[in-house]
Amino acid sequence: MITFVTGNINKVQEVKAILGADFAHEIKLEPLDIIEVQGDPEFVAKSKCQTAAKLISGPVMVEDTSLHLAALNGMPGPYIKYFEKALGLDQLHKLIDGWPNKAATAVCTMAYSEGADMDVRLFKGVLEGQLVARRGENGFGWDACFQPINSSETLAEMGAERKGQISHRRKAVLAFKQFWDGK
Amino acid sequence: MITFVTGNINKVQEVKAILGADFAHEIKLEPLDIIEVQGDPEFVAKSKCQTAAKLISGPVMVEDTSLHLAALNGMPGPYIKYFEKALGLDQLHKLIDGWPNKAATAVCTMAYSEGADMDVRLFKGVLEGQLVARRGENGFGWDACFQPINSSETLAEMGAERKGQISHRRKAVLAFKQFWDGK
Repeated sequence: MITFVTGNINKVQEVKAILGADFAHEIKLEPLDIIEVQGDPEFVAKSKCQTAAKLISGPVMVEDTSLHLAALNGMPGPYIKYFEKALGLDQLHKLIDGWPNKAATAVCTMAYSEGADMDVRLFKGVLEGQLVARRGENGFGWDACFQPINSSETLAEMGAERKGQISHRRKAVLAFKQFWDGK
Repeated sequence: MITFVTGNINKVQEVKAILGADFAHEIKLEPLDIIEVQGDPEFVAKSKCQTAAKLISGPVMVEDTSLHLAALNGMPGPYIKYFEKALGLDQLHKLIDGWPNKAATAVCTMAYSEGADMDVRLFKGVLEGQLVARRGENGFGWDACFQPINSSETLAEMGAERKGQISHRRKAVLAFKQFWDGK
């Protein structure tokens, strides 16, 4: 059994759906509130995983989702959640009103450890797109403000199935699954 | 002796100048790079102080400087340093191009502890103003983009002396000094 430590049940549901019914391990949700560090997404995810591994016995996984705006040279990155909360989905896109470049990179960084003081492995999934004015009601977080490249819909306009086929989270989870399949 | 843990020597110089020659304790700079947590400025400063106190023997102080933009409902706050670095001073003000409200609050949060596992005391200084296009060459950090209320100059246009009379850091340091004077 692998314990997925996150306060966001939506993430667990997406991860389980992507792993599929044939995944050999049970994923258990543990809604612990872990203090996160400042830094780049890899460092944030790694630290969170190390902290989680000290609190949970047995294998543990965490994830960090970040949104990097090209106009802001990669910011807000891991701090996007605070901007989403502060501005709301109606205003989030206004953060780059001052720039013509609307390019955005969604990154899902999953971190896995077999236990306290064990190595942390990172699995990263990246989805390129644009930050746009809010459209759509599906999904969660800033899905409504993110339109993937080669798509006319935001992540919140497409259904869960389509999102699950292309998302940054899917790519990270598949890398994680590949690691398990190769063990 | 009090050890001031910071990577920024400018901050130590300002603090020493504000405390003045008659302050009874020596302030020693320790340029340790401490991992900071995510959260509000009080939590960031308190955590940093607790970490510093574990690394240093004897009384320790740290500070966190944050810039809260009214248009962004308080963001970037403690993350301003990453935005300053990513955008540079020439572009920082563009972050709120989408909003007419340019109000900004500069906050200096000092944290002091007598040692590891001891209480942490916080001293806060606040300066209201506006985020403006870069002007001036004095000061450091985002001083050139912050114009205090009732001033026609940015913090980087006024000299160190005038800045030291009105700054958020001055207010925090005076609260710290008052605490010592009352001991």
